[in-house]
Amino acid sequence: MPLKLYYAPGACSFVPHSMLELAGATFEPVPIKLHKGEQYGDDYKALNPRSQVPVLVAGGEVLTQIVAIVSYIDAAFPEAHFIPHQPLARARFYEALAWMNNTVHPAFTHIFMPHKFSDNEAAQAEMKRFGVASYRHLLAELQTMVRRTRAAGSDWLGGVHPGPLDAYALTLLRWGSIAGINPEDYPELWAQVQRTAQVPGMARAIERERLQLNLYRPAAD
Amino acid sequence: MPLKLYYAPGACSFVPHSMLELAGATFEPVPIKLHKGEQYGDDYKALNPRSQVPVLVAGGEVLTQIVAIVSYIDAAFPEAHFIPHQPLARARFYEALAWMNNTVHPAFTHIFMPHKFSDNEAAQAEMKRFGVASYRHLLAELQTMVRRTRAAGSDWLGGVHPGPLDAYALTLLRWGSIAGINPEDYPELWAQVQRTAQVPGMARAIERERLQLNLYRPAAD
Repeated sequence: MPLKLYYAPGACSFVPHSMLELAGATFEPVPIKLHKGEQYGDDYKALNPRSQVPVLVAGGEVLTQIVAIVSYIDAAFPEAHFIPHQPLARARFYEALAWMNNTVHPAFTHIFMPHKFSDNEAAQAEMKRFGVASYRHLLAELQTMVRRTRAAGSDWLGGVHPGPLDAYALTLLRWGSIAGINPEDYPELWAQVQRTAQVPGMARAIERERLQLNLYRPAAD
Repeated sequence: MPLKLYYAPGACSFVPHSMLELAGATFEPVPIKLHKGEQYGDDYKALNPRSQVPVLVAGGEVLTQIVAIVSYIDAAFPEAHFIPHQPLARARFYEALAWMNNTVHPAFTHIFMPHKFSDNEAAQAEMKRFGVASYRHLLAELQTMVRRTRAAGSDWLGGVHPGPLDAYALTLLRWGSIAGINPEDYPELWAQVQRTAQVPGMARAIERERLQLNLYRPAAD
């Protein structure tokens, strides 16, 4: 079945992008330039009226939402073992994925796109300031998740195989570096993200998106 | 396996609460009084450090996050047919669930708990104002989803059987009524929610939580 992935470099679409590379899938990657507003163009809105990436088109069917696309790619490439089968392990996978998606991800949206939550400039500035502090707490929580995973003898957040949770963690820590948070403040998380980036499938997606993992620049004196 | 559900009346925990009733499950319902701050008590934080409901305890395992708990209950009660099996239909189910959970639900959080996003009172007031307008758009989108479902010949948002998407839609429209939005502004969605409330399992959960579906009060002249 022909697969087409609409992604934006550095966006959360890195999650399905890296899954397709990890699975060795044949797919057409279609970059969307968010900084040029391509997501608001008529063509893209016809595909996804919410103007978000990622979109996966699978045999003519248009799928949005990370959680849904992850579920679909998992089913399409069972040999990649992205989501555990046993019900409790499966629920644990979704517990982590949903938290990244409904809590950590939107926390960054408050820093990066506060206009989504208020049209008042002073309120936007307040949300950004508060958002950076919240995001630091969430990265600490993500680091705790990494620590527990490693302590339990797993190399990857989803268990035995690298997958979407690792790709999302990489994306979220990278976003933090854009928001002025030094990844080195979270050494175990940062080490895990660097390990993740070295997995060949991840590395191919990183190469296509031309991602730098750490965009943190210390404030000038 | 013994099941214990920690829920708060009217919260999104209505989703797993109604699923357990629909499935005819034996479970212990444990109400948490959010208005008394019980979610911040030591006992509850030991269970869920994020102080959120729902929490499902299944055979000693503590599960958080709606998406994860829905996945777990689906696997535990396959005869209730909560989540379709075919990969595309399954992804469509998660697409709707994730959107409710990461977009509509947090939009209400900006109205109801703006202190989660700023400690500045003026910014909180701006977020509330903006949030109500956003929430109206999202309820319109939810109504479109209901319309398409009905036009496709399905009675319920997840397909043939009433389930978590219907329970979430009920919860989200009810929250709108708390935010001063008249459910009758969305007649097809409101009709669907009223049908949902009449399903015996849903009705049992509504009875236990003592929910009124419509809390809208027109502004006095």
